[in-house]
Amino acid sequence: MKKNKNNFDKKALAAHKKFGGKVGLALKARLKTQDDWSTYYTPGVAAVSRYVAENPKSAREYTIKKNSVAVVSNGTAVLGLGDIGPYGALPVMEGKGVIFKELADIDAFPIVLDTKDPDEVIKTVEYIAPTFGGINLEDIKAPECFYIEDVLKEKLDIPVMHDDQHGTAVVALAGLINAYKITKRSFKNSWVVISGAGAAGVAVARLLKYHASDVNILMLDSRGVIWKGRKDIAPYKKDLIKEKIIFAEEGGDLKKAIVEADIFIGVSKPNVLTKTMIRSMNPDPIVFALSNPNPEVMPDVARDAGAAVVATGRSDFPNQVNNALAFPGIFRGALDAGTTRITRDMKLAAAKALARLVKKPTTNKIIPSVLDKKVTPAVARAVRKQ
Amino acid sequence: MKKNKNNFDKKALAAHKKFGGKVGLALKARLKTQDDWSTYYTPGVAAVSRYVAENPKSAREYTIKKNSVAVVSNGTAVLGLGDIGPYGALPVMEGKGVIFKELADIDAFPIVLDTKDPDEVIKTVEYIAPTFGGINLEDIKAPECFYIEDVLKEKLDIPVMHDDQHGTAVVALAGLINAYKITKRSFKNSWVVISGAGAAGVAVARLLKYHASDVNILMLDSRGVIWKGRKDIAPYKKDLIKEKIIFAEEGGDLKKAIVEADIFIGVSKPNVLTKTMIRSMNPDPIVFALSNPNPEVMPDVARDAGAAVVATGRSDFPNQVNNALAFPGIFRGALDAGTTRITRDMKLAAAKALARLVKKPTTNKIIPSVLDKKVTPAVARAVRKQ
Repeated sequence: MKKNKNNFDKKALAAHKKFGGKVGLALKARLKTQDDWSTYYTPGVAAVSRYVAENPKSAREYTIKKNSVAVVSNGTAVLGLGDIGPYGALPVMEGKGVIFKELADIDAFPIVLDTKDPDEVIKTVEYIAPTFGGINLEDIKAPECFYIEDVLKEKLDIPVMHDDQHGTAVVALAGLINAYKITKRSFKNSWVVISGAGAAGVAVARLLKYHASDVNILMLDSRGVIWKGRKDIAPYKKDLIKEKIIFAEEGGDLKKAIVEADIFIGVSKPNVLTKTMIRSMNPDPIVFALSNPNPEVMPDVARDAGAAVVATGRSDFPNQVNNALAFPGIFRGALDAGTTRITRDMKLAAAKALARLVKKPTTNKIIPSVLDKKVTPAVARAVRKQ
Repeated sequence: MKKNKNNFDKKALAAHKKFGGKVGLALKARLKTQDDWSTYYTPGVAAVSRYVAENPKSAREYTIKKNSVAVVSNGTAVLGLGDIGPYGALPVMEGKGVIFKELADIDAFPIVLDTKDPDEVIKTVEYIAPTFGGINLEDIKAPECFYIEDVLKEKLDIPVMHDDQHGTAVVALAGLINAYKITKRSFKNSWVVISGAGAAGVAVARLLKYHASDVNILMLDSRGVIWKGRKDIAPYKKDLIKEKIIFAEEGGDLKKAIVEADIFIGVSKPNVLTKTMIRSMNPDPIVFALSNPNPEVMPDVARDAGAAVVATGRSDFPNQVNNALAFPGIFRGALDAGTTRITRDMKLAAAKALARLVKKPTTNKIIPSVLDKKVTPAVARAVRKQ
C-alpha cells in the first residue's frame, strides 16, 4: 500500500504542476465580431443589467447564478490533514469543482477563505452569495461547521450544504440500508455505535435517526461514550442527547460500548477497532470504517473477525463511501428545482435512491460506484421530486 | 441610433437568456477512470495539499491561483446605470470574464458583493484572495473605490487594479499621445480640461501628469472648477490640488474653463459640451467625450465646431477608448511576471505600447481596435518588462 500511495503522490504532484490548476473559465459567449462585443458587453449588456437589477430573481435566468455553486472552505479540516489553511485546501476545492462539472454539469468555483473566524466566514459567504445558485461548504472543522451552516441556511435564499456532514451521511445511510438488507436486520432495536463526533458523525447519526426513529445510536468522541452523566460535553453533543438522537446509560470506552452492537460506524481515526471488539459484536456485524485514508480497521482484518459487511472511504476496497455519489446530484436537483433549501427529506430521498441503484446488494456491493453514470441523475431526480 | 440600441437590447436579452450566464467552469483534469479519481482527488490530492500548505508560494504553480483573477464589484457604479446592486452588476462582470479569457487566456471569475460598506468590501476581498492571482475591482463608485483600492494594494501580495480608473486612464493616455502627435502639440504648457472627478477622471489626471509633468490640468466636478478657493471639496479632490495634479486660479463653470484649452476630456455626463465651447478652445482642439453610452458631445457635432480629433467610449464611432485594450494585457503581464503590484510605470508602459501599435495615427485612428489580436500581447509584454 505504502508504495502505491507514494506513486499516487508523485503522479498527483506532477499532474497538478502540469495543469497549474484543475479548473478554468469556459466561455459560453465568444467575442469574434464587433457585434459580439456589442451584444455580450456594452452597449447590449446594459439592458440585461437593468432588467436583472429590477428583477433580481431573473438572475437565475440571465446570469451564471443559474448553474453555479461556490465550493467554500477555510482549510481548517482538510481531508485527514487537519487545519492546513486556505492554500492547502485549494487543490481539494478544485477537485470538487471537477467532480461537480464532470458528474452534474454544475459550474462550481473554488473559493478558499483566509479566516478561521466563523462569523467572518458567514459574512463573506453572505456577501459573495449573489453570484451563486448554491453554496457547498467544505472541510471546515467542527463545531464551527455546524454554526456556519445553520446561520447561512437561515440567511441565504439559496441552498447551503456542508458536504462533510451531509454528503457522508447520505452515502453512509445508502450503504447501511443495503447492509441491513443483506444481514436480514431490521432497524428497529438495532444498536449502532458511531466512533467520532465530528461533522460526519453528527450528520450520520441525525440522518439515520430521521430515517429510522427506532434505531439505537451510541456515540463516542475522543474521550469515550457521550452520555448525560458526563461533564465537559460540547453544546452540540448535548443537543444530540436532548433530541434523543444518541443514547447511552453509562460511560465507557469503545471496547465496552461495542459489545453486542450490530453496526460500527467509524468517522474518527485509524486502527481504533480491534478484532476482539468485532468478535464481541452481535452476529454478522456491519463495519463502516470511514476514516481516510487509513480506516479504523482494515477490511481483511474486519472480515477475519467475522464482519459480514465492510465499507471504507477508499477507492481500492469494495463499498466505498464516497461523497461524490451524493453532492453532485443533490445540488443538481436543488438547482433544477430552484429550491432555497436542501431539506432532510431531500437527503433521505437521495440516500434511498442511491441504495436502490444497487439492484442486488451483496457483501461486496452495497453502494454504487462513482464511475456509474446513472448515479448523479438518479440522485438529482430524487431530490427534485421532494 | 435609438433603433439600433433597441436592437442590441433585445438581442442581448435573448442571448443572455439562451446562455444562462456567459461563463462556466472549464476542466483541465478529467475524471474518466478510477486512476483519474485517485490522482486529481483523494488520495493523490492530499500530497498536493500538504505540499502547497507547507509552501504557500507554490500555490502559483499547483493551483488555479496561477492564472485566475477575481472580477469584483458591489454594483454601486455599473456602466452608466449607477448603483444598481450586485445582481445588476453580474452580467457586466461575466462580460469582463469573457474578455479576460478571450483576449488574455486568464480565468477571471465574476464575484459580485452584497455590501456597499467599503471596509466590508475590503475584508471580503482579503478573505477570498488566496484563490486568486489578481483582483480586478470594477464598477465601484467614487470615492469609495479609491479607498478600497489603496487599502487592498497595501494588504494583499497580489496585483489589485480598479479598472474603471486605470484601464480608462491607460487607454485615454494612449489616445492622447497620438492625438498630440497628429495636432503637432507638445504636452508642455498645453491645457487639459477634465470634466468629471470620478474614478476615471482622477486616474486620467494622475497618469497624464505622471507621463508629462509639465502639462496643465484643470478639473471640474458637478459643481464646477475644483480649486483651492472652493469649500466643500472631498478629501481626494483636495489631494489632487495638494499634489499639483490639477490646478486652477479661480472657480467657474465649463463654459469659462474651456476657453483656450487644448484638450477636453469628458468622463462625466451626456451633452455638457457645446459647439460654442469647442469654438472657444485653442486651434485644432482634441475632444475625448467618454461618457457612455451617450457622450458629452456627439462626434459629428464636435467636428462641426472644429475639433481636430474626437474620441468616444463607443464602438460605433472611430477612436473608441475601450478599457478592454488595457486590462487583459496588464493582468496577463502581471501574472506572467509574478509581480505583487501593478505600478504606475507598468500602466505608463502599457499606454505607450498601445499608442505605438497605431503605426501612422490619423484623426480617425489614434487607438487600436479591440479586434486587433496584437493588442493584448503587446500590452502584456510592456507590463512584464517593467
